[in-house]
Amino acid sequence: MQLDDRSLNILFREARTHTVWQDRPVSDDSLHRLYDLMKWGPTSANCCPARLVFVRSKEAKQRLLPAMDPGNQEKTRTAPVTAIVAHDYEFYEKLPRLYPHADARSWFAGNQPVIDTTAFRNGTLQGAYLILAARALGLDAGPMSGFNNDMVDKEFFAGTKVRSNFVVNLGYGDASKLHPRSPRLAFDEAARIL
Amino acid sequence: MQLDDRSLNILFREARTHTVWQDRPVSDDSLHRLYDLMKWGPTSANCCPARLVFVRSKEAKQRLLPAMDPGNQEKTRTAPVTAIVAHDYEFYEKLPRLYPHADARSWFAGNQPVIDTTAFRNGTLQGAYLILAARALGLDAGPMSGFNNDMVDKEFFAGTKVRSNFVVNLGYGDASKLHPRSPRLAFDEAARIL
Repeated sequence: MQLDDRSLNILFREARTHTVWQDRPVSDDSLHRLYDLMKWGPTSANCCPARLVFVRSKEAKQRLLPAMDPGNQEKTRTAPVTAIVAHDYEFYEKLPRLYPHADARSWFAGNQPVIDTTAFRNGTLQGAYLILAARALGLDAGPMSGFNNDMVDKEFFAGTKVRSNFVVNLGYGDASKLHPRSPRLAFDEAARIL
Repeated sequence: MQLDDRSLNILFREARTHTVWQDRPVSDDSLHRLYDLMKWGPTSANCCPARLVFVRSKEAKQRLLPAMDPGNQEKTRTAPVTAIVAHDYEFYEKLPRLYPHADARSWFAGNQPVIDTTAFRNGTLQGAYLILAARALGLDAGPMSGFNNDMVDKEFFAGTKVRSNFVVNLGYGDASKLHPRSPRLAFDEAARIL
């Protein structure tokens, strides 16, 4: 079973990072459908460390904008939704439910280097699942890491062990504003078969 | 434009992490098609730090197996291909070509904390693109982080600034050997809308 060419184009070949947005809202229902897809992507020991804040209201956007790099403020202000992709450094407390086959909590608790790497790696994987799930549902995505993580964490995650990773603008992009696509590395530059 | 339900099932809802593999090879052509899809996934400043080693021959597998955790050795031995997902900490040297609009190299060169975070975050995103691209092309994936990264790096990336991140078994899984699926967090446990 595989996807047809049209679907591969939507997900990969013709998908672009958008920065100019149509004035068209994204509903609660769309965000729930988005989560209900991306949640199935695999993580190590099913640890599911990603935590998401969908910043949509004007009031919430005003809390986010000062943390964005100057070049990322206008696209974030005008995006229908900006998803903050974060991860919970206490993810392992949920493992008795998420991974009931073994005492997976004990693999992490007290081992901070493993907690840190696992949270960042798997939260990032889930961020990529979010980007591709958005495209699969007909949304455009604009991922960005150009912002002040500490400011976002103070504003949105104070008093928790959740920390921001990157953000993804979501909505319906204006394709007429896209620049020509940048090149990618050839197979032999990025990969080898042994 | 969005994907139909069948495609969403293949990518997310019905896709599983496989550990038992059919004796059915994965061709060079399949690996090239896989790379030619996943390469389009977005990375920060188009930095494309992921480097892949597709470990397929018996000889190459013998170099990899001692680094795997005991519980991951048999599934890695029997997988038609094991992709080592790594990232190049000198990725920024390719930015004059990958991001020709600005002097993006200067944003990274000499700034090791930014290099480290960017390489790990974006290399991981590309690893997620690899997993979903494999599923889109009809392959099953079995991602794993249970191995000794230093041993893999010494064996496959000596003398370079490339370091391993995680590995992904690729092939055609035996669905009869799957366990029941583990639960995921509910929307309200992992996300909020502001």
